[in-house]
Amino acid sequence: MTETMTAASSQREMTPPAKYIYVFGEGQAEGNAGLRDLLGGKGAGLAEMTNAGVPVPPGFTITTDACRWYYTHDRQLPPGFEDRQREALERLEQRMGRRLGAADDPLLVSVRSGAKFSMPGMMDTVLNLGLNDRSVEGLSARTSNPRFAWDCYRRFIQMFGSVVMGLEKREFEARIEAIKHRRRVKTDAELRVEDLRALVREFEALVRRRVDRDFPQDPYEQLALARDAVFQSWYNERAVYYRRQNRIPDDLGTAVNVQAMVFGNLGESSATGVGFTRNPATGDNHFYGEFLTNAQGEDVVAGVRTPRPIDELESISPAAFGQLREITSRLERHYRDVQDFEFTIQEGTLYLLQTRTGQRTGQAAVKIAVDMANEGLITREEALMRVTPVALDQLLHPRLDPKAKLRVIATGLAASPGAAVGRVVFDADVAAERGVKERVVLVRKETTPDDIHGMDASQGILTATGGMTSHAAVVTRGRGKPCVAGASSVHVDEKNRRFVAGGVTVQEGDWITLDGGTGRVILGETATVDPELTGEFGVFMEWADAHRRLKVRANADEPRDARKARDFGAQGIGLCRTEHMFFAEERLPHVVEMIMSAPTAKALQAQLEALQSELAARPDPETERGLRRDMAVLKKSLAVPLRAYRGSLARLLPYQRADFKGLFKAMDGLPVTIRTLDPPLHEFLPKREDLMSEVAVLQAEWERAKKRNRKAPKPARLRRQETLLKRVEELHEFNPMLGHRGCRLGITYPEVTEMQARAIFEAACDVTKSGVKAFPEIMIPLVGHVEELRHQAALVRRVAEEVMAKQGVKVEYLVGTMIEVPRAAVTSDRIAEEAEFFSFGTNDLTQLAFGFSRDDAGKFLPEYLERKILPTDPFVSIDVEGVGALVEMSVERGRRTRPRLKVGICGEHGGDPASVEFCHRAGLDYVSCSPFRVPIARLAAAQAVLRGKTAASDQR
Amino acid sequence: MTETMTAASSQREMTPPAKYIYVFGEGQAEGNAGLRDLLGGKGAGLAEMTNAGVPVPPGFTITTDACRWYYTHDRQLPPGFEDRQREALERLEQRMGRRLGAADDPLLVSVRSGAKFSMPGMMDTVLNLGLNDRSVEGLSARTSNPRFAWDCYRRFIQMFGSVVMGLEKREFEARIEAIKHRRRVKTDAELRVEDLRALVREFEALVRRRVDRDFPQDPYEQLALARDAVFQSWYNERAVYYRRQNRIPDDLGTAVNVQAMVFGNLGESSATGVGFTRNPATGDNHFYGEFLTNAQGEDVVAGVRTPRPIDELESISPAAFGQLREITSRLERHYRDVQDFEFTIQEGTLYLLQTRTGQRTGQAAVKIAVDMANEGLITREEALMRVTPVALDQLLHPRLDPKAKLRVIATGLAASPGAAVGRVVFDADVAAERGVKERVVLVRKETTPDDIHGMDASQGILTATGGMTSHAAVVTRGRGKPCVAGASSVHVDEKNRRFVAGGVTVQEGDWITLDGGTGRVILGETATVDPELTGEFGVFMEWADAHRRLKVRANADEPRDARKARDFGAQGIGLCRTEHMFFAEERLPHVVEMIMSAPTAKALQAQLEALQSELAARPDPETERGLRRDMAVLKKSLAVPLRAYRGSLARLLPYQRADFKGLFKAMDGLPVTIRTLDPPLHEFLPKREDLMSEVAVLQAEWERAKKRNRKAPKPARLRRQETLLKRVEELHEFNPMLGHRGCRLGITYPEVTEMQARAIFEAACDVTKSGVKAFPEIMIPLVGHVEELRHQAALVRRVAEEVMAKQGVKVEYLVGTMIEVPRAAVTSDRIAEEAEFFSFGTNDLTQLAFGFSRDDAGKFLPEYLERKILPTDPFVSIDVEGVGALVEMSVERGRRTRPRLKVGICGEHGGDPASVEFCHRAGLDYVSCSPFRVPIARLAAAQAVLRGKTAASDQR
Repeated sequence: MTETMTAASSQREMTPPAKYIYVFGEGQAEGNAGLRDLLGGKGAGLAEMTNAGVPVPPGFTITTDACRWYYTHDRQLPPGFEDRQREALERLEQRMGRRLGAADDPLLVSVRSGAKFSMPGMMDTVLNLGLNDRSVEGLSARTSNPRFAWDCYRRFIQMFGSVVMGLEKREFEARIEAIKHRRRVKTDAELRVEDLRALVREFEALVRRRVDRDFPQDPYEQLALARDAVFQSWYNERAVYYRRQNRIPDDLGTAVNVQAMVFGNLGESSATGVGFTRNPATGDNHFYGEFLTNAQGEDVVAGVRTPRPIDELESISPAAFGQLREITSRLERHYRDVQDFEFTIQEGTLYLLQTRTGQRTGQAAVKIAVDMANEGLITREEALMRVTPVALDQLLHPRLDPKAKLRVIATGLAASPGAAVGRVVFDADVAAERGVKERVVLVRKETTPDDIHGMDASQGILTATGGMTSHAAVVTRGRGKPCVAGASSVHVDEKNRRFVAGGVTVQEGDWITLDGGTGRVILGETATVDPELTGEFGVFMEWADAHRRLKVRANADEPRDARKARDFGAQGIGLCRTEHMFFAEERLPHVVEMIMSAPTAKALQAQLEALQSELAARPDPETERGLRRDMAVLKKSLAVPLRAYRGSLARLLPYQRADFKGLFKAMDGLPVTIRTLDPPLHEFLPKREDLMSEVAVLQAEWERAKKRNRKAPKPARLRRQETLLKRVEELHEFNPMLGHRGCRLGITYPEVTEMQARAIFEAACDVTKSGVKAFPEIMIPLVGHVEELRHQAALVRRVAEEVMAKQGVKVEYLVGTMIEVPRAAVTSDRIAEEAEFFSFGTNDLTQLAFGFSRDDAGKFLPEYLERKILPTDPFVSIDVEGVGALVEMSVERGRRTRPRLKVGICGEHGGDPASVEFCHRAGLDYVSCSPFRVPIARLAAAQAVLRGKTAASDQR
Repeated sequence: MTETMTAASSQREMTPPAKYIYVFGEGQAEGNAGLRDLLGGKGAGLAEMTNAGVPVPPGFTITTDACRWYYTHDRQLPPGFEDRQREALERLEQRMGRRLGAADDPLLVSVRSGAKFSMPGMMDTVLNLGLNDRSVEGLSARTSNPRFAWDCYRRFIQMFGSVVMGLEKREFEARIEAIKHRRRVKTDAELRVEDLRALVREFEALVRRRVDRDFPQDPYEQLALARDAVFQSWYNERAVYYRRQNRIPDDLGTAVNVQAMVFGNLGESSATGVGFTRNPATGDNHFYGEFLTNAQGEDVVAGVRTPRPIDELESISPAAFGQLREITSRLERHYRDVQDFEFTIQEGTLYLLQTRTGQRTGQAAVKIAVDMANEGLITREEALMRVTPVALDQLLHPRLDPKAKLRVIATGLAASPGAAVGRVVFDADVAAERGVKERVVLVRKETTPDDIHGMDASQGILTATGGMTSHAAVVTRGRGKPCVAGASSVHVDEKNRRFVAGGVTVQEGDWITLDGGTGRVILGETATVDPELTGEFGVFMEWADAHRRLKVRANADEPRDARKARDFGAQGIGLCRTEHMFFAEERLPHVVEMIMSAPTAKALQAQLEALQSELAARPDPETERGLRRDMAVLKKSLAVPLRAYRGSLARLLPYQRADFKGLFKAMDGLPVTIRTLDPPLHEFLPKREDLMSEVAVLQAEWERAKKRNRKAPKPARLRRQETLLKRVEELHEFNPMLGHRGCRLGITYPEVTEMQARAIFEAACDVTKSGVKAFPEIMIPLVGHVEELRHQAALVRRVAEEVMAKQGVKVEYLVGTMIEVPRAAVTSDRIAEEAEFFSFGTNDLTQLAFGFSRDDAGKFLPEYLERKILPTDPFVSIDVEGVGALVEMSVERGRRTRPRLKVGICGEHGGDPASVEFCHRAGLDYVSCSPFRVPIARLAAAQAVLRGKTAASDQR
């Protein structure tokens, strides 16, 4: 892993800020919420809370500037930094009336990371810093609680040892397990103070052995090492992966928060917990959270003990509970958003350790946004900006089919809604590997940040321990992925790759179903149904629709998809790929026949054309008779392939007509864009390699047969497959992406375009007669030169007029083109002479603009992203600088020729929010995406408008 | 064949011209040389000559407007046309004092095509029109020469029958052969009047049988039919092919010239001939031509009889000869260019039938241009415009090696200069087919316009009959192809595909050599040497260099090519493809080793980097020691592949360094652009299919071996080839054109770029020490994003500084990029942040802009050209509208960032004159092309300047 603090940060060196440390405490802080860049989210929050009179343990924040300096100066800190830090620490010591690690009554501190953007659990934290062999005794004496003191010290060595000194966590854990075994106890809590003393000695010896030095006893050395470890954790693998996933720049750096420790583990009047001002799973406006008595914060988050609901705190510590409700409500109003807070009650006294904007499910995000707008806390525009478009994705995922019979084998916490169906895997690496090929569900005792890649690849997550705020729950909610957490009746045996629940043993590879909305774990592969979208979702999308300018269409090839798309708010079909219809089982044989007969038929037609041209050139009747005789002979001898060719097309026509009728009905009153045949013909034939080996085998068999009987006839299948192979060889291409496909097919085989046009207009006329309003938009693919489009458009328009005249029906229609070839973008002024609409095929446009084959780019694209040669995968989010420039150029030039040209996009980018925003800026009329992404695109389109307004008012 | 008279001509209909016929005769003509569009070249020339007092047989010209009307009005002529034609004919009859086809003293006319641009022999002609069963007697009586009259009639039926009535020429010829056989004579001239009468009867019967009507006797019907046949011949296959080859638009149409017949076959005081005012093969300022006495013009051109040199005419008809010299000299001065004229002497009286600009060889074109400029007839600028750049090509072709031993088996006319070496073929179709794969020489008795496609595919042409103005001679001179014509000692047996000459039988497929400069036919494959360029050529190229702004470089990979390029005037190397060096026999094994070891080595490096990064992150000495131990183990266990990888590169370095030294020496003082490795790695490995079948065979052998001996070890070759196949499979790509190649290789394997950079700078430093001035320009291929270039450029610059520092030598160098990916063109402002020069790779840019794979486009590109969807093959001449727009955009944007950015082109378009002109207009600094095309590019660059001046002054 290399570091890349570059230009931006080096520029800052020019004017080094005077201040690398901001202190806070006793109602006064040097920082505030506005200094997020400098203090990180946590540091800015602590300062803001302190200023707002919230009880926060005092401390100080080392800025992100210090972190950037550290990385750009060979891991040194700025001159004079250590003095400033000692001053800040002295201030803290004064406030707390204790000295760090003092032998009699030590001040203990926590050292925590805190970046501008929340990266939960990605970076390192050290608690209880300041303890050593002497101060542990002081702590013991002051608290009159030797067990607490030694447990703190045990925890500190364990945490510092793994985070700062690089030992393996499991080595410490193994020793704890060993001592519990020796003492014949089950939980840590049952260990006595002697056991903890012994553990500390064992831990110290372990450290000595592993890193060849004593565990550091000097508290100031402890602090310096912990601080540097936090800086270094900015570049640990998990953090780098998280930032790449969340598009957080690498050069922000992290702040470090040093804060006096308060203890939730000083007995049963102490507690620690986390909470949300509203329910982060459902969005209900209900105080929500969990706590553990006599515990430290990490116990809650780690999911090792299952915590209690926050309501129960009232009975334990009513004053603290009331104060907590009051303070957090105030914080929600202050920040105008749901707060996710951490608190500790030390012997009855409440401290808030952190508050931040609460992560939430998509469902909750929508409900909270709508509620808050209705409460007048935020505006509708703000509400729209509060939900990230991708968060909607989870609302749209299928639920369990209510009619399905369910065998529930366990129930856990409903940690993240939605239904997940998949084969069980027990390991994140296995999940990542198998998840690309099939649906998997990851089952773990508990998840850790190391599991993220496997979680991303899974349909859903099941954990045996941990609460609603455990790692698994937080991560899955953020990603809109179903999760059942803390299902304690699930006994996971990760080593043997199985779990037992409800008396059933489930092996790796078995199917299970999770219902994240109820917490049920169900045996087998359960049927699911599509989500209904009502209530707040409907209101929210209405608000979005009121703001957006871009229309949203769907890519749909079948009436079923079209209907679903319409339910999701699609305003038409932006792309119907007619070739998908060709692959259907009952149709493929006709397609194959068409491909096999086409070359001979083409040759015939060329000859006939030559004769017809001669016929046209020589009007004298004798010659004419002769020519007609020749033509008759030619027609007769070549009738078979022609009949096969025309016949295959004639047999495909009714299928296509029926498909189109279905689409027009589903989209009654809305436009339906139909693309003529696009893929190279060899895609419809068997694979070349497969045919070669089959022919080889059949030939060998025939050879053997001939040895037995010299007159053995060539088997029919061999003859057939040889013919097929010959044609496949003819059609073989070095670069199929750049080969004989798109409109090039329609030009060499105009009969195919003609058949498709006929099917479209016959279908449109038919449905029109039954009162359906059809608006076909015929789209010619892969056009690079206006003459290609002119050829195909003339053909389509001729057929349209013929069919409409015959049927006596008038259908409004447009003929347009995909813009997916760079030349088409560059010459769009010419293309628009013929095209009544453009639709950007940004998949191919990206391939051709970059010269990347999507099928082959896997050989270098990951490395390009790793090395930051490309900022994002251009197939996921449109490359605004290059491909985007071509799109803008094309729109501008196209509209120069035809000012009212309709322009859309139908590549997969149409459902990517960043790309939708680009499309809005580029002045497109619509985006088209897969049905499930229609709401995402609707919201993204609205947000683009709002963001544009903000940008415009910022410029003023 | 379909006709395509479109928009342009339909517009003309709006204002129909009043005049479709222009008459000329007796010193007065309605037309003039300025009406070429309307009257065609021949018609305009006849009018101009008439007005200039040249003795021209009177007649009239039917305009190209009439032809266009004919094609756009269902083959009808304009209203009133027939009346106008009758008036013009009556005027002619008055002038000649005879009536068309009159029984007593008939006027005979010729009906000839004549388009704006000369299309020699492509369209139809009918002579002696007006003869019928009665007028033949009248002609006989008036000339007192029955044999002449019946011979004319025989010729007329034969010509009219084949051209107008569609009979096969060979049917007539068979009947002539039959009668000669019956009469036991050898030549047509020996046939008596009775024989000719009998032939006429036979011909008339033949016509009746074939087309079921009598041969038309009405002279006016004859005229109408002949006129329409000429119109129709505009769209015959030959003419369409010729126009496509010569980029003549289809909608020009042809004029028809109807002219009184004069006869060169009225006895020995009559003659006919063709001539040039200067020698069209050498350019010598010497009256030049050929004639036959007692013959019609077609006899000279057809090459059936071998004509006499024009000088001999003086002794036969001194007055006519003097008049001819005087008139043609006047015409040359009048037209300010060499004239190609046709004349007939009818019983001592001279008539000029045609004059036009003479076609000439490249050598003659240069000499004539230089001579005429020196004579003051034209300016130097005009001289430069007089030579088409492609005409220079033939000057640059190799000559026979003077040291070669020649076995001359025949000598013919030196019809077109240059040496041609190839295998003998006897058929144009075979030539066209084999000529794409190997060198062929086409051998024919005589060529006809039907043979053009085969002539184009041949290295040279040998004919047994025909003179310097025969079809073969004219066509080959125009194309700069060697030709030996009229080699009468060559006995061609086309049926059995062999010829006999000098006692040797040469079969199809045998090698011969032609020396077009001396007319020698040589047995076998003779060595050739490169041409020397001196005299007028040098002067001419100096004039060109004085005018051009574009520099011209060459594409050269080897010192030998570089030296040749420099001889031809190259001003540097614009493209050295380093991969060509990789394919050399002694190097390929190292390349293969590099490819095989790279993946493991890469994995190793990734692991080492991870350890190094950890090492960097944790400064405490204990950890460091541990990490160093781990690294040592890792290095040891993975030393083998790393050693193989680095070793293979180390072994390639000296080869590359030596290559580059050679190039720098050859280009001392001039820039040398070196491109880093470009093709996908699999190109260096055996073909996948080949390996698959070899492995299958080896496996089968091993299986058999194991049946004999169960412990038979796996053969070493099988193991090796299996490993190779595995790697080939890894490297296999769906679209190699869009795959892992270009700078993408350099980014994933930076060691390769580093090795190449090291070789370049070590070579440059070395030669600098010996006084050579090296200017390397390192070019990174396939860049689409500025970060790709930034990565590679940083690497190159680092190595450059390292090498120069070590060697203590300073070398001026540039780092730049190919612009061949559309995204690079669009984002050239960004690319220019890093690039010190751009070089357009228009081959790939064309592929990506159109989305055409050059390897696969053969499936549709011919049809695209046929159907005029594309005007020209974009791989031959740059597509100005699309690809050109990208080039212009890139230049503009690149120079916006870096105003003095050096910009060139190194695609194959760099040697295409039209593309060179575009490059000039687009403001490029240089073009780079293959060495032999350097002079072509130099001239094209000068012409671009002159054409620009003309265009500018036209606008004023």
